[in-house]
Amino acid sequence: MEKVNISEKFSQFTDYWNPRIIGELNGQQVKAARLKGEFIWHHHEHEDELFLVTKGKLRMEFRDKSVEVGVGEFIIVPRGVEHKPVAEEVVELLLFEPATTLNTGNVENEKTKRNLDKI
Amino acid sequence: MEKVNISEKFSQFTDYWNPRIIGELNGQQVKAARLKGEFIWHHHEHEDELFLVTKGKLRMEFRDKSVEVGVGEFIIVPRGVEHKPVAEEVVELLLFEPATTLNTGNVENEKTKRNLDKI
Repeated sequence: MEKVNISEKFSQFTDYWNPRIIGELNGQQVKAARLKGEFIWHHHEHEDELFLVTKGKLRMEFRDKSVEVGVGEFIIVPRGVEHKPVAEEVVELLLFEPATTLNTGNVENEKTKRNLDKI
Repeated sequence: MEKVNISEKFSQFTDYWNPRIIGELNGQQVKAARLKGEFIWHHHEHEDELFLVTKGKLRMEFRDKSVEVGVGEFIIVPRGVEHKPVAEEVVELLLFEPATTLNTGNVENEKTKRNLDKI
């Protein structure tokens, strides 16, 4: 049982859209991700997804609206709901989601990341 | 899909050791809790528990050591592990844990809270 310092974890990598696993519990994972630019439209068939922003401002786009999520805020995207994360400037955030969650959800393309590093 | 502002949630209550539910996903809950003083020794038979500190400094005591957890840090206490949260000064934190988790774990006493408010 060691504590995890979130900033220290982010200092261990510099790339975007490549989440690292920084915690595991109850079949869920805590991931640290750095974002910049636009991701793709996707949804997760079986997983709800929580985004907790620790740096910058995330814009979560849905088909009918968008929500700006800043530092100290989170948003939960329920399973089945199409969404597209957008980071005009660099965003750092934590994800809480089942270990089965694939970053691109129902879409498989060059952005898909499997076998995420644990740091 | 609305965002949740953590500070705004804490502004809605003032008491200690009485977590509020501020998010739900995948059978897990996100709770906001304000702590001051010492809790009791307990463990959770079936649930791992994550404590993410947003204000102050938490001291998590284990039978063989203690860990100080500050703002921007979290600690995961695995199921079965005895622990006692201590807050010398006021601490605010988020909990991520299964919806089945009882605050006092295997112990039932006047500190036990059931049917937590959702805010």
